[in-house]
Amino acid sequence: MAYRETEKMRLRKAETRQRILDCALQLVMEGGFRNAQVSQVARRAEIATGTIYRHFTAKEELFAEVFRTATRREVTKVGESLAEAGSVIERLEQALRQFAARALNRPMMAWALIAEPVDPKVEAERLTYRKAYAELFEQAIREGMNEGCLPPQDAVCSSTCLVGALAESLVGPLSPVQGSTDETSHTSNTETLVNGIVRFCLQGLTGTGR
Amino acid sequence: MAYRETEKMRLRKAETRQRILDCALQLVMEGGFRNAQVSQVARRAEIATGTIYRHFTAKEELFAEVFRTATRREVTKVGESLAEAGSVIERLEQALRQFAARALNRPMMAWALIAEPVDPKVEAERLTYRKAYAELFEQAIREGMNEGCLPPQDAVCSSTCLVGALAESLVGPLSPVQGSTDETSHTSNTETLVNGIVRFCLQGLTGTGR
Repeated sequence: MAYRETEKMRLRKAETRQRILDCALQLVMEGGFRNAQVSQVARRAEIATGTIYRHFTAKEELFAEVFRTATRREVTKVGESLAEAGSVIERLEQALRQFAARALNRPMMAWALIAEPVDPKVEAERLTYRKAYAELFEQAIREGMNEGCLPPQDAVCSSTCLVGALAESLVGPLSPVQGSTDETSHTSNTETLVNGIVRFCLQGLTGTGR
Repeated sequence: MAYRETEKMRLRKAETRQRILDCALQLVMEGGFRNAQVSQVARRAEIATGTIYRHFTAKEELFAEVFRTATRREVTKVGESLAEAGSVIERLEQALRQFAARALNRPMMAWALIAEPVDPKVEAERLTYRKAYAELFEQAIREGMNEGCLPPQDAVCSSTCLVGALAESLVGPLSPVQGSTDETSHTSNTETLVNGIVRFCLQGLTGTGR
C-alpha cells in the first residue's frame, strides 16, 4: 500500500514536471525567454511558483532544459534532411532550406533559440547545439568530398562557416526589434533571404556559382 | 575656490572610472567575462567594491561598456582594412584575414567578445556590434557589385552570412574548453583555419573556386 502511494506520487511528480516544461516552452514560443518568467510559467501551469523549485533547482535549469528540448527537435530535423535520398549537394540544400523555412515560420521561437540574449547557462547550451549542427554538416561535407562532388576542403571549418552563415543571416530578420513588420512583403522577402543563404553556403562549399 | 575643488573632484572621478574600465578590460583579456567579477576589478583597481557602484549603476553596465570599448576597436580595424587600396576582393580578403588573425592571437579576448556566454545586457551589445561588422562588409559587397567584380546578390544577406561564418568558425578554436592546447601545431592549424574561412567566404561571395 505504501509502495503504491509512492508510485502514484512519483507519476504525479513527473506529470507536474512535464507540465512546467510544456508551459515554459509555450511562453518562449510566444515571446522568447524574456517572456518566460518563473511566475508566468507557474500561472500558466496553474501551480504555485514555489512548486517549480521543487522540480528545478533554479530558474536557469528550467530554461536550459526548455532550450535543449526545443533545439534537439531542430537538430533532428537537420539530421533527417541530410539522411534523405539524393546527392550530397541536394541534401545539403534541402537541409539549409528546411532549417531556414522552419525558423522563418516560427520567428519568435527561432529568435529565442538562435539569438535572443539569454542567461549564460542557456547560452552554454546554445554553443553545444551549434556544435551538434556543425557535426551533422561536417559529415555530409566529408561524404561529398569522398564522392567527388565537393572539392577538397577542411570539413570542420566549412561546416562551422555554414552553421554561422545560416544562424547569423537569420538573426536580423528574426529579431523582434530589427525584423520587418510589413506583412505583405513577408513571403517574397523570405524567399529572397532563403535563396541568398543557400546560394552563399553552397558556393562557399563548392566554389561554383549558381 | 569652491569651483576649483569641484573641478578637481570631477577629474579624479573620471580617472577612477577609467581605471575601473581598464582593470575590467585586463581581467576579461586574461580570463573572459567569467573571470571579471566586480570584487576582482575592485582589487585590481585598488579601490573598494562599493566605489565601483558609484561609477556604474550595475555590474552589467560596467561590463557592457568594457564590451563596447573592446569591440569598437575591432570594428574600426575591419573598417580600416576595407578602406585600404586594392580591389574589393583583395580588401575583403585582407579584412577577413586580419580579423581572424587578431582573434587567434588573443584567443581569450576574442572568445570573450565573440562567444563567451555572457549576461543578456552584454549579449545585446554583441548583437549590435555584429550588425556593425555586417554593415561594413555590406558596403564593400555593394562596391564590388557596382565595379562588376562580384556577381549580383543580396548584399545584406551575403554580409551577414560572412560575419556569421567568420564568428562561428572561430568559436570552436577559440573556446578555452574546446580549443586545442597543443602548442606545436598551433601555427599550422591557425593558417589552415584562416585559409579555410577566407576560402569559404570569398567563394560564397564570388561563386568562383580558389
